Formats: sequence, C-alpha cells, structure tokens
Amino acid sequence: LPFEEAFVSDAAAAHTSDVAWVAAMLDVEAALVRAQSQVGLVPTDAAEAIAATCERLPRDSSLFEPSLARDGTPVISLVDAVREATPAFAKGYVHLGATTQDVIDTALMAITKRVVDGIDADLDAVIRSCARLAAQHRETPMLARTLMQPADITTFGYEAARWLDAVLAARAEIRHSASSLAVQIGGPAGTLAAMGDRGTDVTERVADELRIAAPVVPWHTNRVRVVQVASALGLTCGVMGKIGIDILLLSQREVGELAIARDETGRSSAIPDKRNPVGPVVATAAARRIGPLVGGLMACMAQEHQRSAGAWQAEWEAYNTTLRLCSVAADRIARTLASIQIDSARMRENLDRHLPSPDSSAPPSSCLFLTDRVLERAREERAI
Amino acid sequence: LPFEEAFVSDAAAAHTSDVAWVAAMLDVEAALVRAQSQVGLVPTDAAEAIAATCERLPRDSSLFEPSLARDGTPVISLVDAVREATPAFAKGYVHLGATTQDVIDTALMAITKRVVDGIDADLDAVIRSCARLAAQHRETPMLARTLMQPADITTFGYEAARWLDAVLAARAEIRHSASSLAVQIGGPAGTLAAMGDRGTDVTERVADELRIAAPVVPWHTNRVRVVQVASALGLTCGVMGKIGIDILLLSQREVGELAIARDETGRSSAIPDKRNPVGPVVATAAARRIGPLVGGLMACMAQEHQRSAGAWQAEWEAYNTTLRLCSVAADRIARTLASIQIDSARMRENLDRHLPSPDSSAPPSSCLFLTDRVLERAREERAI
Amino acid sequence: LPFEEAFVSDAAAAHTSDVAWVAAMLDVEAALVRAQSQVGLVPTDAAEAIAATCERLPRDSSLFEPSLARDGTPVISLVDAVREATPAFAKGYVHLGATTQDVIDTALMAITKRVVDGIDADLDAVIRSCARLAAQHRETPMLARTLMQPADITTFGYEAARWLDAVLAARAEIRHSASSLAVQIGGPAGTLAAMGDRGTDVTERVADELRIAAPVVPWHTNRVRVVQVASALGLTCGVMGKIGIDILLLSQREVGELAIARDETGRSSAIPDKRNPVGPVVATAAARRIGPLVGGLMACMAQEHQRSAGAWQAEWEAYNTTLRLCSVAADRIARTLASIQIDSARMRENLDRHLPSPDSSAPPSSCLFLTDRVLERAREERAI
Amino acid sequence: LPFEEAFVSDAAAAHTSDVAWVAAMLDVEAALVRAQSQVGLVPTDAAEAIAATCERLPRDSSLFEPSLARDGTPVISLVDAVREATPAFAKGYVHLGATTQDVIDTALMAITKRVVDGIDADLDAVIRSCARLAAQHRETPMLARTLMQPADITTFGYEAARWLDAVLAARAEIRHSASSLAVQIGGPAGTLAAMGDRGTDVTERVADELRIAAPVVPWHTNRVRVVQVASALGLTCGVMGKIGIDILLLSQREVGELAIARDETGRSSAIPDKRNPVGPVVATAAARRIGPLVGGLMACMAQEHQRSAGAWQAEWEAYNTTLRLCSVAADRIARTLASIQIDSARMRENLDRHLPSPDSSAPPSSCLFLTDRVLERAREERAI
Repeated sequence: LPFEEAFVSDAAAAHTSDVAWVAAMLDVEAALVRAQSQVGLVPTDAAEAIAATCERLPRDSSLFEPSLARDGTPVISLVDAVREATPAFAKGYVHLGATTQDVIDTALMAITKRVVDGIDADLDAVIRSCARLAAQHRETPMLARTLMQPADITTFGYEAARWLDAVLAARAEIRHSASSLAVQIGGPAGTLAAMGDRGTDVTERVADELRIAAPVVPWHTNRVRVVQVASALGLTCGVMGKIGIDILLLSQREVGELAIARDETGRSSAIPDKRNPVGPVVATAAARRIGPLVGGLMACMAQEHQRSAGAWQAEWEAYNTTLRLCSVAADRIARTLASIQIDSARMRENLDRHLPSPDSSAPPSSCLFLTDRVLERAREERAI
Repeated sequence: LPFEEAFVSDAAAAHTSDVAWVAAMLDVEAALVRAQSQVGLVPTDAAEAIAATCERLPRDSSLFEPSLARDGTPVISLVDAVREATPAFAKGYVHLGATTQDVIDTALMAITKRVVDGIDADLDAVIRSCARLAAQHRETPMLARTLMQPADITTFGYEAARWLDAVLAARAEIRHSASSLAVQIGGPAGTLAAMGDRGTDVTERVADELRIAAPVVPWHTNRVRVVQVASALGLTCGVMGKIGIDILLLSQREVGELAIARDETGRSSAIPDKRNPVGPVVATAAARRIGPLVGGLMACMAQEHQRSAGAWQAEWEAYNTTLRLCSVAADRIARTLASIQIDSARMRENLDRHLPSPDSSAPPSSCLFLTDRVLERAREERAI
Repeated sequence: LPFEEAFVSDAAAAHTSDVAWVAAMLDVEAALVRAQSQVGLVPTDAAEAIAATCERLPRDSSLFEPSLARDGTPVISLVDAVREATPAFAKGYVHLGATTQDVIDTALMAITKRVVDGIDADLDAVIRSCARLAAQHRETPMLARTLMQPADITTFGYEAARWLDAVLAARAEIRHSASSLAVQIGGPAGTLAAMGDRGTDVTERVADELRIAAPVVPWHTNRVRVVQVASALGLTCGVMGKIGIDILLLSQREVGELAIARDETGRSSAIPDKRNPVGPVVATAAARRIGPLVGGLMACMAQEHQRSAGAWQAEWEAYNTTLRLCSVAADRIARTLASIQIDSARMRENLDRHLPSPDSSAPPSSCLFLTDRVLERAREERAI
Repeated sequence: LPFEEAFVSDAAAAHTSDVAWVAAMLDVEAALVRAQSQVGLVPTDAAEAIAATCERLPRDSSLFEPSLARDGTPVISLVDAVREATPAFAKGYVHLGATTQDVIDTALMAITKRVVDGIDADLDAVIRSCARLAAQHRETPMLARTLMQPADITTFGYEAARWLDAVLAARAEIRHSASSLAVQIGGPAGTLAAMGDRGTDVTERVADELRIAAPVVPWHTNRVRVVQVASALGLTCGVMGKIGIDILLLSQREVGELAIARDETGRSSAIPDKRNPVGPVVATAAARRIGPLVGGLMACMAQEHQRSAGAWQAEWEAYNTTLRLCSVAADRIARTLASIQIDSARMRENLDRHLPSPDSSAPPSSCLFLTDRVLERAREERAI
C-alpha cells in the first residue's frame, strides 16, 4: 500500500517485508527437514538438499503470490517452488507432515521476535531520554493541566518520570508477551500424526534451530500467543501516544514549553518555513490505528474446529500491521525525545500567568521525591 | 505487506497500487494547473509544460517514498520531482496555492470512484446470481435453522431472495455514498486564499477535469465523505460475509446442501485432494476485518483545527484497506455464486430427518410469495 | 451501569430505558394482534383483550429479566406475562405466529425513530448556533493551525461555517438512514408462514400502527438497517467530536480564543473554582467510544442461517449505546455552542504574535465568500 | 440498559452494579481518611466520623447521579453527600488532598479484583471440565475439520486438551494482569502535593486497607494497568469464544457429536420444544463484543497532560463492560461444559462417512501422547 512506508521503522520494514516473509517461510521449511533428518524421518542427504534449496531460492514475492490469490494461502506456491528446485531423490521429503499454518505461524513467531527486539531497543532509548529529562528538570516548575485547563503546579521532571514509569511497564509487557513465542508444528489437523512418535522431538529441534521455544502442544486454533503479543504492542503504542500527545500540546506555539529539534520535524508542501512535528504526529496516528486492529484480532480468536475458515486468515495483515505500528511509534518517540528542547522560562511564565497563587512559587517537594522513586525503579530494573 | 494480495480484487489492486496512487496524485497536479490556467492564474504555456511533466514522470513509488518517511506525507517528494522535471519558466506554478492534503484527498476521491465502480459491477453479478437461484429454487424446500438448530421449513429460493434483498440495499448504500465524492482544493488552511477570488472556479474546473463533483467549500477537516464511503463499504462487506457464512455452513460435508464448484476452491498444502472454500473464506475474513477499520476511521473524525496532527494520517492505510477488502469480498462472492451447486435432494433429506413434522411436506406458500416480491423489487430497480 | 447517565441525553435516556423497552415491546405485541384481527386471523374481542393487557402491564424490567439470563432473550418472560394477564379465551392469540426477534427488532426500530428525532432536533440547534457564529464572525480574523502549529490566516466565521457544512451533511445522513427503518414481522424462520397468505397484510398494518414503514420482506438476518443507522450515528458523533476538539483546543487558557459559558462547565472535586469544559469532554468521549461499537456491529452482519447464534445478540447493548452516545454528543455540543463566548481580540493577538506577516492584517476575501456559500446552502436546505 | 442482564455473570453483576460502585467509592474515601489519620494528617476522631459516615450512607445511585450528568463525574455528588452527613468538626477533612480520579480509579481496581477472582474461579471449573473430557475421551476418534471441511482424524480427548491448553494460558494472563492492580492516590495533578511528604505513606496505607498494591507513583494518565487487565479479559473471552464456537458447530443436529444438557439450553418464544444452545451463544456473543471495546480502550491511552479531556471518561462504561463480558463468557462455558453430552458413536460415524481412508480406523498415538502432555502441564500448574 502506498502509505505504509510512513508507518514502520526502518528495522521493522526490513523484518516484515515480502522478502523477509519469504526468507522466514523458507527458513521454516529448512529447519523442519533438518529436524526430521536428525530424528531419522528424512535421509540426511535429502534434508541437506532441501535446506540448500531453501537457502538458494530468490527471496521475492513471486514465490508466494500465485497461491495467495488462488488458494488463499502463500504456502502452496512456496512449497511447489521448493519441490521444483529440489533434486528428484529428495522432492518427496519437502514439507513432510506439515501444513500451511505450520509455516505461516512459525514464520510469524520468528518475525515477531526480530521486530520485538527492535522495539525493545527503541524503548531503551525512550527510557534513557525520559530519565535524562526527569533528572535534568527535577526542579523545573511547570503548569499541570487537567481537562485541558490550568489546574495545579507540577515539575517537568516529574512528568518525564511519569512517562518513564509507563514506558517501563510497557517494556515489561512486551518482554512478557515475547516469552510466550513458540514454534508451531502440527500437520494438517495439528495432531503431529504424520511424524509418528517423533512429532514433539521434531518440534523441539525446529525450535532450537530457530531459537524460539517449543510449545507443550501444537496451537493452531489457540491464538493466545498472537493476541498476547498484539496486546502488548497496542499497549506500548498507547504509551508512545501518551508521550506524543503531550509533546504536541506542549509544543503548540501558544504554549511553547517544548520544541522539537529541527532535524526531527517535517516540511510542508505549502509553507516553506513551517516545521511539522512529524514524530509525534506519526506516533499518535499509530496509537489511533493499533487499537482497532488488536480488537479485531481478539474478535478472531473464536476459530472453528482445527483451522478456521476466515478468522485465521483475517489475522495476517492486521497482526503484521500491529508490529509495524508499534515499531514506528517507538522509533519516532525515541528520535523526538533524544533532541527535544525544553523552555523552562516559558514553563515558569505560563505557570505565573495561569495559576497566579502564592503556592506556585516553588515546585512541591513531593514531585522531587516521586521523580526519584521512578528513577530508582528504573535503576533497579537496569533500564538506565 | 506480504499477505495483501489475498485481500483485494484484481481490479481494485490495480486502482490502489503505488503506481495508481502516483498517477492519481500527478493527475491532480495536472488538473489543478490546467484549471488555474483556464481562469487566468497561470500562463497557458506554463500550465501545459507542468501537465506534460505530470504525464511523463514514471509512475513508481520512488516519487513519494522519500518524504513519506521523513515528512510524514508523500506529496513533498512528488512536488519536488514535478518541479525538477519542469522547465524553469514554469517551475513557479507547480502546486500553486495547494497543499498536501488537497493532493491526497482529491486523489483519494478519484481512486475511490474507480474502486467503487468495480464493486458495483461485482454486486451486479452477485445480484444476478441471487435472482437466478431464487427463481430456480422458488419451490425447493429447505430446513430453516435458528441459533444453529433446526427450526422450521423455508425454501432455498426464499433464502436466496433474502440475500438478494440485502445486496440490493448494500448496492444502494454504495451508490448513495459515492454520490458524496467531491474534489478537495483548499490550500494550506482550506481557505483558497492563494487563488484570490478564483478559488471556487478553479475547484469546479478541477472537478470537471477529474469527473468528480465540486464541494460547497473545502472539506479538509470535515471527514464525512470518507466515513460515508467507508461505512457503505463496511456494510456491503458485511452482506457479503452473510452470504459467505451461509455458504460455508451449508457446504459442510455433514450438511451438504451446497457445494462450491471445483474451479473456485483452493488447494491444501497438506492434503492433495482436499478442496477449500476459499471464496467464502476470504469474504468472511474481509467482513471480520473491515468493521474495526471503519470504526477506527470514525474515531478519527475529531480532527484538530485546520489539519489534524495524527487523525488524518491515521486514515490513509485504513481507508485504502476498506476499499480493498470490500472489493475482494464482492468479487469472491460473485465468483462463488456464479457456479455454486445446489443439492435439492439433500435439502429434502435434512428437512425430513431434522424436522419430522407433517408441516414439512410442502414449502409454505408465503415463501413463494415473498420470493416473488424481492424479484419484483429487483426488476423495479433494474437490477435484473 | 453506574456511569451510563453521563453518556446519554435526557431525551434518549427516557427513550432507551428499561421502561421504554418494555413499553416498546408491549406495543409491538398489541400492534401485532390488532393487525391480525383486522385481517381476520384473530377474533376482535381477543385482540382487544390482549391489547388491553399490553397497555395495563407495569412497565418494569421484571417483565423481561427472568428470561434474559436464562434463555438469552427478554421476550419469553414478557410473552408469558402477557399470556398470564390475558383472559383465558384470548390467551391462545398472544404472540401468534411471531418470534422473539420480531418483537426485539420492531421495538428497536420504534425506539430508534424516537431517539433519532431527538438527535435531529439537537442538530438543528447546533446548525443554528454555527450559522449565527458564522454570520457574526464573518470578518473576525483568526489563526489557522495545521498539525498543531500556526499556518495561515482564516476567519472564525469561516471555521464556524465549516462546522456547519459538516453538521448539514451529518443531519442528511441521519435522515437518510432513518428512511430505511421498517418493522420486522417474520415468525420463527422469517417466512411469515404461520399467517398463511396474510403475512404481508399483517406486517403493513403493524407498520401503520407503529408509524414505521413496512419492508419488502422480513429482514431477520439482513442487518443493513441496523448498520445504516449506527453508521449515521457514528458519523454524526464524529462531527460533534470535531467541534468538541476545536472548542477544547481554542479554550485552552494559553490560547484563550473561546470560552464556555459558566453554566455549561462542570465542577472539580479538588479545586473549587476550576471550571471544566464538560460539554466538549463528553462529546469527544462519545466520539471516541462510538467508532469501535459501530465497527463491532459491522463485524456482526455475517449472521448464520435464519437467526444467528451470537452475532445478533451481540448487537443489543452495542446498538443501544450508539443511540445514546450520539444523543449526548449532539445535546452537549448544542448546549455548549448556544452560549459560547468568542474573544476576537485574543484571536487578533494570537494571529499577530504567531503569524507575523504583512498578509495577516486582513482576512482573505475568499473566507467571506466561502462562509456565505455555506450559509446559502443551509438556507436552501431550510436548515436556518 | 435493558439487555445488560444477559451479558454478565451473577457474581460480576453484583460486583459492578450501581450499589457496588457507590460502596467501592465510599470505601476509598473511608480508607483515605483513615490512612491520613494514621500518618497524622487528620485527627483520629474526624477520620472515624468520616469513615462512619461512609459506612452509613445508603448504597444507591442517587449518591452520584446528579454530578454525573452535570459535571461529567460521579464523585462530586458523592463527596457532597459525605460532607453533608459528616459532623461539622470533621467536614473539612473529607476527600482531603484527593481528586475525582483517585476515587474512580481506586474503586475500579477494587472492583476489578473482585470480578477477576470470580472469573478465575469459573476458569477453574472450565479447566476441570476440559481435563475430565480429555481424560475420558483420550481414545475417542473424531473427524478433524479445517476450513469447515473434513480433513483428518483426531481424538475428542485431544481437542478437549487443546481447549485446556488455551484456558491455562488465559488464566495465567488474567493472573498476570491482576498482579498489576494498584491503588491510585495523587490529588488534582497527581503530585500528592497536598499531603506534604506523607503522600506515599498515605498511599501505602490505603493500599493495605483495600488489600491492593501501592504503585511506585500515581498513575493518572498512565493507563497501562487498565489496558493490561482489559487485554487479559479480551484474550480470555476469546478462548471462551473458541470453545463456544466448537460446541455450536459440533452440536448442529446434522453433526450431532455434542449435545448441551437440557438444563443449560434456552427456550424459544415461537417453537415450544426447541432448545437453544444459550450458553455458547452468549459466550460467542461476548467474544464478538469485547474486542472492539478493548481496542477502544487502547486508543484512549493517549491521555492529555495530567488528566484527559475525554479519553479517560471514555474508559468508564467500556472497561466495566469488558469485566462483565468476560465474566459471563467464563460462567456460561463453565456451566455448559459441566454437563455436556458426548456422542462417541456419532463421532465414529461422521469419521467413517467423511474420511473413508484406511488410516481412520484408529486414533493416532500422537493424539494420546499430546493429550497427556497437556494434562501433565495442568497438574504441574496445580490447575487440576
């Protein structure tokens, strides 16, 4: 889609592209046949021939497009291509005992792992920026606003510390959800029947090969993993949206308490010297978009029998998009915060103008204390 | 995204691709400058030079990608490219008095028109198939099922007529929403100020050029049109989903009352002779996906001031996807119904087995009468 | 639910309460039996006895609660209560040939009509306020802001006219959707079989009695009407949200261009003299909530066979809530705009400070012209 | 709302009623003033007088309704009522240093804890039923169906074990999210400033009193807790929906492999002897409804400044509804599974008819082995 480049980090774009998906699906086929040869289900030379084919095939979307439109799944064309490029003696061992959903779900887990690692790194950067701002502005008084109206005095340091508190919680959720990732090998009905009594052995070896966990049993129609990850992405994106909306509001020219560094702003096609707050715009847009997608994924959990006729297929683009939206929100907020400019004088001025009470002269000591508590927690979690 | 090919009709894929979007945006720039020359704002030779450039530029995504990631909008790179390829004497007239949102929103309307025309044609095919089935099976008795349990007697003709009744209503909604399409020319703040007193003239000429209506005033932050179309697409996709779920349920082997023609089924990667009901699977998947997207678009209507910081940008991919999902649902159901096979004997058998009452011997005359009413209505609307 | 009183207008609260629902369902039973007596299916005295019972029964939720929890429908208890309170000779004619869905769907249509009429009236008030503001501030210069940053000059009158343009479109959509309302009489499988050849006669008489249209055929599993109305409510609520977010932003103390009249603000439990912009807060909250509900309703359109096992039931609370959310948004924005205070001097001041160009001295004439166009359109539609 | 009784378990109905909310909010006020007296901020006799008032006040919605509609928050009326009923000497200490959001958010956490405990208990019952079915039908062969078509052989025991695997994961997520619950005490801007250096002491004592954890810092605009719980509820409801849809499909009369015990079915208003599968109908309806609500909550995380103007208020009904929907889904599936009837002969018959291959004579040994793995895991987690 023509606008999708705006809503993905560079890293996640690489990990979720057509090329990346073809590579991930071929990796699954290669890992599967190697695992099967390790347990004696496939001759070693056949396994090596197939794995070599998987490594050699071009990584482009022509490998899966034909069957996507025709059969509603990308895997059939891909398996056909592997079979065709494999020496005759080994052809019969390609995709042995597996099903399309094994390939797609396992590739999804591998791709998720890569994207989530990138998000984790961006959240680290966000955490470090929040901690720096909290420490630097520990005593910078600032107007607190509730329901968009002046309400009380706070400090900018404390507000940055509260961002930090939320980001720490989001990162913990991302990691919690990532701990549930597991390969999916089950065969046509998820029974592993075609591998006799070696099914769980094969699954464990595929898991080792791909450096993802093995599940207790195949999880075809148990979509808890998918929704756990998507929920954590949605929650994290929401936290980025919270930081984003605060930046947008505080950098309104009439407020003027924050300013985005020029390098991180976007241009306008109509007004040459206008600079748009593109980072928080994209982050809040991502936060607006991800909720409905996650909600849609939840509504797709009621998957019929041993493979759903619609609810599973409805996950594909939506789940990929949640990965991309969270990646771009974290990346954009990380970049924006890294160079954001704080105008303490303007904070003081707004406070004096809009909260003209004697209490507003000094920041409350509780703000300082609470700021320190969050920083201490971040240190305990080795986040800073 | 790697799975998007499964969720778009061929026609809509062509109309919503990168190439189509580049072409549509260049068409807007060309139409704008031509309109401006007609009202005397731009010299004719400059207008022709710019329009020629717009026609000559390659239709590829490299024209908009650079500014998408950097500036959060595809238009800046595109305008830069047009300027660069335009002779010096005319450069100053490129994108005159316009803004990014003018280009994107107007291109969106043009693309919507094309996709909606395709959907309308597919709905015509669905309507004809439903009408044919209603007429052919006017007296075919069938088990009515409520809450998934046997309930009463009906006829298959009447059930096809009820599908038809819903499709007629959906098509009317699609057409109603399409009647609201209008170009968007407003300039940076939607005031048309840069065109002096010729703004509405220019808008009307752009509208003529692109064969879309002109609005009363620019509609930058009035997203009624976008949500009207998306709602009609969602509603139509829901009607396709209704037909899809009925086909899926009635073609369960244990029920066996319908069967999808072999050419319209999909293959399995694991079971060579299994045939999957890929049409209704894709249609019901589309119906599951579109609701959250439309809901998300509604939640984006509260766009701040004269251009939103996030809510507008959040529309882009979501709206495009609603076009694509509705297109594939209509296309798939049209293809599935065109060759669906009805097993009247099995309908009779299920009825006798699961509703063993004396009433079940003949279809109620009301079914026949109601079937005729729908067919008559379809004829009145010249739909069949 | 404890918070629901905040999210409904007084009028819609009365029309969607337990009492109103009981009354509406009893009205359907009374209208049905009267219609059946008119066509000769029920003796007149029996019909009158049943109708009298329906009028006499207490309007409280104890009439439907027992079967809601047990049977998943409110109608069974209600019909039992009617039968019990009806003289023996007439008992057999209660709910004759009807089904639970007939009662619920027809009551829903009647309730929708009442709520929508109230919304229409509130939109009228919004339209008049917008028109008044547009006329009064036709030449009041104001800073236009895009992506939350100063962008250009506009007039407040033009911005009010653009609100007006959107509200006119929303009202037209509400009316368009209301024109699709129709009673639902179909019997257990939607075939009208139990009424022999008098089914459509009965339906038309029920429609007359309840002053709603009669449909071509029963529409049990054709949910187009439900989604049409919900979509129009969502769209309208979104337009209220647009006005609400603009008011919230412009009445930030740091901007200070608008102020909500004291009577329309809410108090704070913590800060005695703080006044909260409760009208736009509630309207924007409603706009945030309604999208997902409408999206959910769309996803419920794929209803199985002749009555869905879940998708229909999932509509009930969600649809009622869409009625209530739109009602409160329209009511709150109507009340807020009726007494809103405009600070033209502050508009001038913000413009001079944040857009210090020579162009900013006078409002562009195009703003005046475009304002007039919208006012003219409103007059043509007899909206003002 | 008139239909809400169908979509809540009895236990959750009691915990989320108006009465329960009034009680929970009064408990917060009582706990707050007691905590403040313990740290010396309020005289003991004043604290005891206020706490006594909070216990004595009637638990009805008239305590909060007036300010809900007027001020957009239930707390102001409630605090007014407490003050009015408190002896003069103590009045000044009511709601000291607190804000409406402290009361609502802390009450929400207390209510969540109670509802979640009830859901946990219902999930225990679901787990025990699944484990029983898995063990009893460990060797019962059954047709596996993919994309609604016959695909392979499995066992019913293994399918029940896969339900169990998903329920175990859902229960773990519910517990994980419940571990994040924490009281919210922050005062008007979330700074705890009004309590000097005793704010965190007070918070910890409130937490002790209410048996919920204390947070690191106030979390007014950090909605991670709310979304974590809602996501876990959505995920759990999705798992219930998966079991529900399988029961609906397998108990179609044409399939006939499962039957719901008569006591757990619902009646029809039209067909006296029809029995509706009301448990799975309600559970799947809940699963359809909860996703959009959770998605909406995610989209509300971007809360402006120190208290949002709309996004927070938009949470109230939606979050309460997620608690209720998950409660009813777990309750209904628990009740349905407890007495469900399995027709092994019919399973055999469907298998023979629709998968007539030599392989279908005996269940694959892998099904037995995988069933045992899940049961073993359940035992390790002391779930059975």
